[in-house]
Amino acid sequence: MNTNDFFSPKSVAVVGASREEGKVGHAVVAALKNGGFPGQILPVNPKASEVLGLPCAPSLKALKETPDLVVIVVPAKAVPAVMRECADLKVRSAIVLSAGFKEVGPEGRDLEQSVLQIARAAGIRFLGPNCLGAISPGNRLNASFGGDLPSPGGLAYISQSGALLTAILDLAKTREIGFSRLVSIGNKADLNEVDFLRTLGDDPETTVIAGYLESISDGPAFMREAERISDEKPILLMKSGGTASGSKAASSHTGSLAGDEVAYDCVFERAGVVRCQSIEHQFELAQIFLHQPLPGTGPDGKVRTVVITNAGGPGIMATDAVERQGLAFATLAEATVRTLKAALPPASNVQNPIDVLGDALVDRYEIALKAALADPGVDAIVILLTPQAMTDAFATAEAIVRISKKARKKPIVASFLGGRRVADGLAVLRLGGIPTYDSPESAVGALHALGDYARWRARPQRVVRLFSVNRRKVETILDRHLRAGLTQVGEADAKEILEAYGFRTPKDALATTADQAAEVASQLGFPVVLKIASPDIVHKSDSGGVKVGLADPESVRDAFDLMMVRIPKKIPEARLQGVLVQEMCQGGLEVILGMNRDPQFGPLMMFGMGGILVEVLKDVAFHLAPLTAAEAREMLEATKTYRLLTGVRGREGVDLDAVAEGLQRLSQLVTEFPSIQELDINPYVVGPPGTRSMALDARIRISARAP
Amino acid sequence: MNTNDFFSPKSVAVVGASREEGKVGHAVVAALKNGGFPGQILPVNPKASEVLGLPCAPSLKALKETPDLVVIVVPAKAVPAVMRECADLKVRSAIVLSAGFKEVGPEGRDLEQSVLQIARAAGIRFLGPNCLGAISPGNRLNASFGGDLPSPGGLAYISQSGALLTAILDLAKTREIGFSRLVSIGNKADLNEVDFLRTLGDDPETTVIAGYLESISDGPAFMREAERISDEKPILLMKSGGTASGSKAASSHTGSLAGDEVAYDCVFERAGVVRCQSIEHQFELAQIFLHQPLPGTGPDGKVRTVVITNAGGPGIMATDAVERQGLAFATLAEATVRTLKAALPPASNVQNPIDVLGDALVDRYEIALKAALADPGVDAIVILLTPQAMTDAFATAEAIVRISKKARKKPIVASFLGGRRVADGLAVLRLGGIPTYDSPESAVGALHALGDYARWRARPQRVVRLFSVNRRKVETILDRHLRAGLTQVGEADAKEILEAYGFRTPKDALATTADQAAEVASQLGFPVVLKIASPDIVHKSDSGGVKVGLADPESVRDAFDLMMVRIPKKIPEARLQGVLVQEMCQGGLEVILGMNRDPQFGPLMMFGMGGILVEVLKDVAFHLAPLTAAEAREMLEATKTYRLLTGVRGREGVDLDAVAEGLQRLSQLVTEFPSIQELDINPYVVGPPGTRSMALDARIRISARAP
Repeated sequence: MNTNDFFSPKSVAVVGASREEGKVGHAVVAALKNGGFPGQILPVNPKASEVLGLPCAPSLKALKETPDLVVIVVPAKAVPAVMRECADLKVRSAIVLSAGFKEVGPEGRDLEQSVLQIARAAGIRFLGPNCLGAISPGNRLNASFGGDLPSPGGLAYISQSGALLTAILDLAKTREIGFSRLVSIGNKADLNEVDFLRTLGDDPETTVIAGYLESISDGPAFMREAERISDEKPILLMKSGGTASGSKAASSHTGSLAGDEVAYDCVFERAGVVRCQSIEHQFELAQIFLHQPLPGTGPDGKVRTVVITNAGGPGIMATDAVERQGLAFATLAEATVRTLKAALPPASNVQNPIDVLGDALVDRYEIALKAALADPGVDAIVILLTPQAMTDAFATAEAIVRISKKARKKPIVASFLGGRRVADGLAVLRLGGIPTYDSPESAVGALHALGDYARWRARPQRVVRLFSVNRRKVETILDRHLRAGLTQVGEADAKEILEAYGFRTPKDALATTADQAAEVASQLGFPVVLKIASPDIVHKSDSGGVKVGLADPESVRDAFDLMMVRIPKKIPEARLQGVLVQEMCQGGLEVILGMNRDPQFGPLMMFGMGGILVEVLKDVAFHLAPLTAAEAREMLEATKTYRLLTGVRGREGVDLDAVAEGLQRLSQLVTEFPSIQELDINPYVVGPPGTRSMALDARIRISARAP
Repeated sequence: MNTNDFFSPKSVAVVGASREEGKVGHAVVAALKNGGFPGQILPVNPKASEVLGLPCAPSLKALKETPDLVVIVVPAKAVPAVMRECADLKVRSAIVLSAGFKEVGPEGRDLEQSVLQIARAAGIRFLGPNCLGAISPGNRLNASFGGDLPSPGGLAYISQSGALLTAILDLAKTREIGFSRLVSIGNKADLNEVDFLRTLGDDPETTVIAGYLESISDGPAFMREAERISDEKPILLMKSGGTASGSKAASSHTGSLAGDEVAYDCVFERAGVVRCQSIEHQFELAQIFLHQPLPGTGPDGKVRTVVITNAGGPGIMATDAVERQGLAFATLAEATVRTLKAALPPASNVQNPIDVLGDALVDRYEIALKAALADPGVDAIVILLTPQAMTDAFATAEAIVRISKKARKKPIVASFLGGRRVADGLAVLRLGGIPTYDSPESAVGALHALGDYARWRARPQRVVRLFSVNRRKVETILDRHLRAGLTQVGEADAKEILEAYGFRTPKDALATTADQAAEVASQLGFPVVLKIASPDIVHKSDSGGVKVGLADPESVRDAFDLMMVRIPKKIPEARLQGVLVQEMCQGGLEVILGMNRDPQFGPLMMFGMGGILVEVLKDVAFHLAPLTAAEAREMLEATKTYRLLTGVRGREGVDLDAVAEGLQRLSQLVTEFPSIQELDINPYVVGPPGTRSMALDARIRISARAP
């Protein structure tokens, strides 16, 4: 893809240009012309001699030179022919605005495929179809029918919804937001979000990339590019269409707890993408990411925030929000307090929140802001203003902008509460690069997002430890299953797989008679657990197929016989291979280590409280594989169960490293074997440091190909 | 309090009226005059003969008649004298705008008290001090220094922050919000939020009450009034200053889990108060509560919502929000689908979300809206619009308003995305009473809040069951403790208290020697539990004071001796009374029933997963006592533990009624004995229906007076 063709072409042909107002073919030529496009605008239409005063060519071929960019606005059925003409002319880049493709059904889908084939064969890259076009305000290029050319600025926008882009363009004018590039990716037949992420990542005009996506075309490529770009430029994404798909059937706990939303959250977290909850939220965040520096933090990694206000109530609101959102409430240095005390009236509050009082003029705000900027214990500043009798919103805004331009080291956000009486102040702030918010809460929310991104940027390098394992053994077992068309790995095989990757599992043996079971139990030592062995029973305890704490041969015999009588009644179709007699693991804490393979993004690792509580309490954390040691530890820390792991109420803590290592080993296993679709080790029993952890039960679902 | 004096006085005196612009005493007279107050404005100032052309009296006494309302603007120190003059004149109502009272420290607090005493003695009710005043646009009364008189409307506002009220007044102009009354309650020396809630509840001009509070002066009165009023008018409150106080020391699990925030949430839920997260959010909600009818629901109690849109992307956003916020996605009736199919173009989506396509003019919106209104399976409607080439936001808005005015049975909300191109449409909607939102997500959020309130309004009558109990016995035990100055009730006494209220507790006996313990155990039957008996040890298991599963006399002796050796080393100051030998309860599910008495709002009941997990998992629900049977059940249902209670993964469920009854009995106990400050029954062991539940351990803290 040649970026210049889409963002700074020297000539743009519009095939389907029209003289008729209200037609898209007219709107595009008008947009190019009215936007002041400095290059050649080349309308193409056999039925017109000119459009908007520009000479019109009867066909692409009739043009003297090959245009850098061809915008296609003809009816869907005519698009393949135009694309063929493009191929003949050796056009490199096109935008297909026409609708009537994939979005209208199977016939459209076929049409879209044929356009794609023609373009691919000729090496043409194209945007669309069914899109709004591309806009590049800095170059005065408006190759779209979305309305007037917006102001230039540092924000790029990629939208999967054309209509949304028209709304954004309209909104941007009211809010004085400038853009570097806007692209509507439509049906993404050829070029998709990843292509434009890559392009915008390298684009010097773009400082922040925002986007609206309903789907992601190539999961791994998206992750790779987004992670690379986020290290230099923030990516703010609104992703919709997420909550509907919780319905797919899953056979593991991990599978049933991991939905699409979980996968996207993991991907965004891994790639440093800032997820926005609404378009409103996205624009709130864009302001701060565009114009403010990243904050530092205190020793605990929290952004130490100070609030400056001329009114108590809003000050309390901001303070509440700082605590609620996990920022730190800055403690002012003694020197700062002294400075404030000397310069502000006696009734002022010279601690955080700094209250400059209702009759504050610009001087008190200046004093407070300068003091906060100078205080080494302050990372970020929230300035609040209410329009009281003496308040001068305009002058105060000017002072904030002036001071902030000199000291660009700490982020400053503002919330001027009110309407007309603060409007001119708000305009000054906005033009001066100080983000403004309708409420103290959203101002603090924006700081929080900026702080999270700063933390991501400062993350340590990812080093994935590779354990020495018996990979060949697992290969053998899985191949055997796949050849036999089996999708569930039986318990004995699952144990072998885990052992090959360094997990300890309980000693056990299969018994096919009650006496044999009792004998095995005596060899293992009492108490023992009996588990039904059947390839058809996934959740054994649900069907009465697990009996724990059997303390003598007699109880083992009884339990065996009862299972053999009762289970066939409950699940007549289940093939019973006998009963697994297993040493019983006593004490320790039960956790779950799991994996669910997302069709787009690969293995999602899960950690949580184990046993039957996992799906009830949903106290679990997810992370994309492969895991680093730090990521595995973060997963533990992200759960409430973590407090149990570290010891609570006089109970000794467990070996945290053993749990983290278990997650890493599992991550290696599922990374090396893409046929593993779902995997639960539940319970994974962990004791205090020094004891060995044990995988008591495992459930593995495989499939020959990624689903 | 005479409402008329504050909201529609016939005469208003301003003591401290000033000719000097910029002074509050000038601003108030100007506000009254410029607002067009139809009654008498009576400036009072010995140093002026007129203020703003109005004749000025040298003193209150010099007035011919007693004014209905006296606004006091003199310096703080002069306020008592003016209040005395008011008393002499038999003034009934006053507003003290002057600052310099409680908010500046102890001296100001004393001054405030003396003003209060004078007023109380004379039967004068007053607003303030340190407030902005009172405004009543319908009567053209602006007795404030907050700026111009706002437009009249149905919204009343009570603010504990004067500065915030200036911001709200300013904001309201931009957003075209009208008010019935606005009051700034300032320091609340006399009149407080409850007085004005009561007044506004009965005020025919007010249809919705909103407010900003930092504290509540009288908890029980607030609850009572708010609950009564919410049954007729919604109350939308923003409460700040909530997150700071989690630090107080608590000796019970319940106490440590219940903070101020929990109490406020319980109070608001009980009283039907809608809690707002920010001023922004409050105004978003005010719009829908002011102008739209309450929605119905489907059989599952959820508001069945339909989305009408001219763009796919925003439609998906709204759909996501509907699912995420717990509304139901309406399924259109066959007849509706037929109607839509017949009238809309073929490419339209005639299922929910109804997509009228990008080129939709007003007619398609009309068709879709009418069809949705007519469909009996639709409870609420979200209309989305993006400004595309053909879109006519203005005409569409007019049609929505026109149709909605005819059929006022289902709430309609709109989100017109964009800026200038939708501005005139937004104005039409706002004036026509259709709430408009910046994003589909906040439109759905507003519907959600309205639906929650509708559910509260439809709640069944509260009937608290009174159990027959042995109240006298509890009285005896508690009195004994209180007389002895004890604050912790020992385990044996706690058991007696619970038994007196119908709880079953394990059989046990105190033993002071190892042999005696073994003997008791043999009588109770093995296995048994040993628990240290000491008034100084609250969390017994933390200090090694609990040993479970002792299966024979030898183990009992060992455990006894070990406790007696080890505990004094760990807690030398603990007085040991011996060891409690207790029958051991096997099987069943462990939950916690608890209570923490909030100093403002009384007993907060808690239910959750029991054992040591309670503080780790925090899977608990709170509710104010006294509990009804329905409320007790709701508490169970509000936890994740509920799924365990009902049975999961082949395990039998427990006796839900027994748990709910336990909560009700506990609620009765703590309601009847206000000296009980904190109480945990943990674990409360419940088995399947038919078995009896048991309170295994209890912790009770008492105090002679409410804290």
